[in-house]
Amino acid sequence: MDAMDHDSGELQEVSAAEIKSFFESAPPLKDGDEINKKLKEFVERNSSATAPRVVCVTSGGTTVPLEQQCVRFIDNFSSGHRGAASTEYFLKAGYSVIFLYRSGSCQPYCSSLPDDPLLECFDISDDSNIQVRQSHAEVVKRVISEHHAAVSGGYLLKLPFTTIFEYLQILRLVALSLSCLGPCAMFYLAAAVSDFYVPWETMTVHKIQSRSGPLDMRLAQAPKMLSVLRKEWAPVAFCISFKLETDSKILVEKADMALKKYDMHMVLANELSTRKEEVIVVSKSGKTVVRKDKAQPCVDVESPLIELVVDRHSTYIKHSGDGTETTRREEDEILVS
Amino acid sequence: MDAMDHDSGELQEVSAAEIKSFFESAPPLKDGDEINKKLKEFVERNSSATAPRVVCVTSGGTTVPLEQQCVRFIDNFSSGHRGAASTEYFLKAGYSVIFLYRSGSCQPYCSSLPDDPLLECFDISDDSNIQVRQSHAEVVKRVISEHHAAVSGGYLLKLPFTTIFEYLQILRLVALSLSCLGPCAMFYLAAAVSDFYVPWETMTVHKIQSRSGPLDMRLAQAPKMLSVLRKEWAPVAFCISFKLETDSKILVEKADMALKKYDMHMVLANELSTRKEEVIVVSKSGKTVVRKDKAQPCVDVESPLIELVVDRHSTYIKHSGDGTETTRREEDEILVS
Repeated sequence: MDAMDHDSGELQEVSAAEIKSFFESAPPLKDGDEINKKLKEFVERNSSATAPRVVCVTSGGTTVPLEQQCVRFIDNFSSGHRGAASTEYFLKAGYSVIFLYRSGSCQPYCSSLPDDPLLECFDISDDSNIQVRQSHAEVVKRVISEHHAAVSGGYLLKLPFTTIFEYLQILRLVALSLSCLGPCAMFYLAAAVSDFYVPWETMTVHKIQSRSGPLDMRLAQAPKMLSVLRKEWAPVAFCISFKLETDSKILVEKADMALKKYDMHMVLANELSTRKEEVIVVSKSGKTVVRKDKAQPCVDVESPLIELVVDRHSTYIKHSGDGTETTRREEDEILVS
Repeated sequence: MDAMDHDSGELQEVSAAEIKSFFESAPPLKDGDEINKKLKEFVERNSSATAPRVVCVTSGGTTVPLEQQCVRFIDNFSSGHRGAASTEYFLKAGYSVIFLYRSGSCQPYCSSLPDDPLLECFDISDDSNIQVRQSHAEVVKRVISEHHAAVSGGYLLKLPFTTIFEYLQILRLVALSLSCLGPCAMFYLAAAVSDFYVPWETMTVHKIQSRSGPLDMRLAQAPKMLSVLRKEWAPVAFCISFKLETDSKILVEKADMALKKYDMHMVLANELSTRKEEVIVVSKSGKTVVRKDKAQPCVDVESPLIELVVDRHSTYIKHSGDGTETTRREEDEILVS
């Protein structure tokens, strides 16, 4: 079970020390300056509209290195499909997206492609030219053109990570760069972030040796960055986190706890085996179940989901001047299970 | 340190029980029949030559699930580059290859491509056709044509795995299917196989919950399959294993121990940071260092490496009738460091 809620002042104090320690002991971020430069340019390009909407979508799992010269690591199963599909729908809805994704995970527009698109979608023709296989032509064309339009149009910025250190360091840079957009910025935190990790300074340097007998490992709890994101890095941005469980009996309870504990605006809760069909949206105004329409198998569950999220963000922006958060429950109910 | 060598009879008995237990408790292999069918057809197609040479190249890391409904797992850092590049050179040398690879890892012919070949190598032309970017055209053409020739010519069979369970189950099927080729079969075991794992029946079913305080994990030692491969599954095949260390001081010692302990014909030893430049070949006839030629930066270290391996296999096959294994040291020395 998660720890009991402390008095919020105490929680803030404990977390601040942990978080400070985490960043101070983490290995320095490679290409930090390059990332900051890209972020600055991206935000400038997208600030010119009257009410520019930018969402940071995080996607895929973080790794926890077990050795400094990393051979082994703990990973989270996360294809990145949720984040990648959601990014497509945010772009369609007119948002610009900073896509903070696990290197090698699912890319926007690419989910209907085979695992190895180059080798499975192309042939060499009789006159020695590269040609796309007819069966894949339309899909490949759409993938390439939509992806390139989003990137070259300046609507999609892609930033890769692998370790939990890189993920949190880059997330912090993104949050600081988006703070100028106030409530128009959104965080859609679909990444599967490690709950446990090995602090860098206590990590064994060399590869852990095989031996006779079992291997005992002790992992520290990873500090929850959601609190510091909400309180310090992006205090007026609209924040959405995810909850994935394998046991449906505890799913909503865990989502409710996360909503309160980290002061999220929404928690999107899903059960591992049904995550492509159903998402439970938990907020202060109650619970809403979003389902894939079985009559439209080609339409992802992310379609109605992002529509609802965008609508809630609009309400949030509208009310952000007068200090009240929306509790427009009657408009939010789709189906309550 | 590895366990002290037991009397070989005892070692065999201990291993047999562990290995039996491992396979009995592992989750059943998905598509086992399909895999067997592909193997049967592949071996038949390749058995017709006088002395058909088939190598099983294993590549990439295995995962150790930490929960039965797998959310978290332990993984080994292994791009699969060694196995993929070696496969190209084996094919060039006239071998047929069964490529047993980690799903998502490096593919033969693809190592000079960018990470995301579809999105980085293609554009849509003004007249709405898919076209390859000029800068990548030659490479992409070569990749597709060579890969397709190998697969459709029946020289390359690709079998993916993810978990340690799948890896060892499929390896066993491959070994049994290649046993009819006697000494003409080779095992080139470049995969990074987990040393520690969680036995399936002791594994927690649901996702391990976050909690306050550290997480303690106890992992069992994974049974070494090299012994059972050599003794039971493919007793006359030519067997090569790998040793990767981060500490160069212990590298050769560990390789020597593996050679003796598992009765390998060769152990290819490399240090993590120099693995693309240098490989130490350890066999009963001594130690040979194979190095990338600095004057030819485009030629992978796998080129001289596979040439040496093929030569040793030829010698092995030649002597396999008269029961003596080669110790033709004078021909094997390239450079001894």
